[in-house]
Amino acid sequence: MKIQRHGTTRRYSDSVSHAGSVYLVEVPQSTEADIRTQTREVLDSLERLLAQAGSDKSRLLLATIYLRNMEDYDAMNELWDTWIPEGCAPARACIQAKLAHPGYRIEVVLIAASIPDSPAG
Amino acid sequence: MKIQRHGTTRRYSDSVSHAGSVYLVEVPQSTEADIRTQTREVLDSLERLLAQAGSDKSRLLLATIYLRNMEDYDAMNELWDTWIPEGCAPARACIQAKLAHPGYRIEVVLIAASIPDSPAG
Amino acid sequence: MKIQRHGTTRRYSDSVSHAGSVYLVEVPQSTEADIRTQTREVLDSLERLLAQAGSDKSRLLLATIYLRNMEDYDAMNELWDTWIPEGCAPARACIQAKLAHPGYRIEVVLIAASIPDSPAG
Repeated sequence: MKIQRHGTTRRYSDSVSHAGSVYLVEVPQSTEADIRTQTREVLDSLERLLAQAGSDKSRLLLATIYLRNMEDYDAMNELWDTWIPEGCAPARACIQAKLAHPGYRIEVVLIAASIPDSPAG
Repeated sequence: MKIQRHGTTRRYSDSVSHAGSVYLVEVPQSTEADIRTQTREVLDSLERLLAQAGSDKSRLLLATIYLRNMEDYDAMNELWDTWIPEGCAPARACIQAKLAHPGYRIEVVLIAASIPDSPAG
Repeated sequence: MKIQRHGTTRRYSDSVSHAGSVYLVEVPQSTEADIRTQTREVLDSLERLLAQAGSDKSRLLLATIYLRNMEDYDAMNELWDTWIPEGCAPARACIQAKLAHPGYRIEVVLIAASIPDSPAG
């Protein structure tokens, strides 16, 4: 099975697909922004990356959400809870951690299904 | 291939299965309890969730264990080491991190195989 | 599909393969060493484990890098960026976290593809 990558640099790819699963990691672009702006940026970007990889936010399997400060938990969840299509929430872990850039308040890792549902599955 | 979810809320699912793998995340129920009680609760719950998804603790692929305090490492491992069937331990990472609820001393993420072993692989 | 494990103890396996994916976690051996030595040890060991599992560093899907101290980020990346074959970088998250042994400055979790590429994939 072929590996497909998007947004590949020397260090990382934006997404990597293989064997019906796609792996994505996203951080905010606006490192001075508040948690709402950063969460919105990350979710919007993940939505584009999912589409690029032949998946979408109704097909998430596992999400890992890293927050620089757990006090941002409720504000992040306000956006998350409306972003996730009803009945489609992935398994999800959320932990506090210092991230690579001091301006990042959130980093999200997703594993999603990249092959469309089929009754034969 | 079809995605199957259990325990789905607006925010997360207890488990999500796809393409022969199942993804699970669990936290303790007793937020005032010590690490032994919380670890026992989490492992017991994961065992039920694995069964519900057509898997079991002999088929774990990757475990990520988040501990609020690394001083709980030895006590957690006492339970972990006896919970894992001999010869079946998954790849495993264990890190310290502040978790979503101040009473959580442990959070466990599992990826497991959901299709039974067969020589025809 | 069969699960294949290498380096299995009561607590963890060095690698576990299933359904075309392999899961690996590695920590340094030299707990007194600096970040360059530890990163080199971890990447060398992961390379051996990948080979043992029928994969290699050109087939990484997702990497999670835990650093004890984010000040080690640039030194770790110097080695990472040359270790990754050009055009083959995985999705990657990097966070700061206290690890199981106080001497560990780095811990790396990989998910890789274990089935060779084929146009039929």
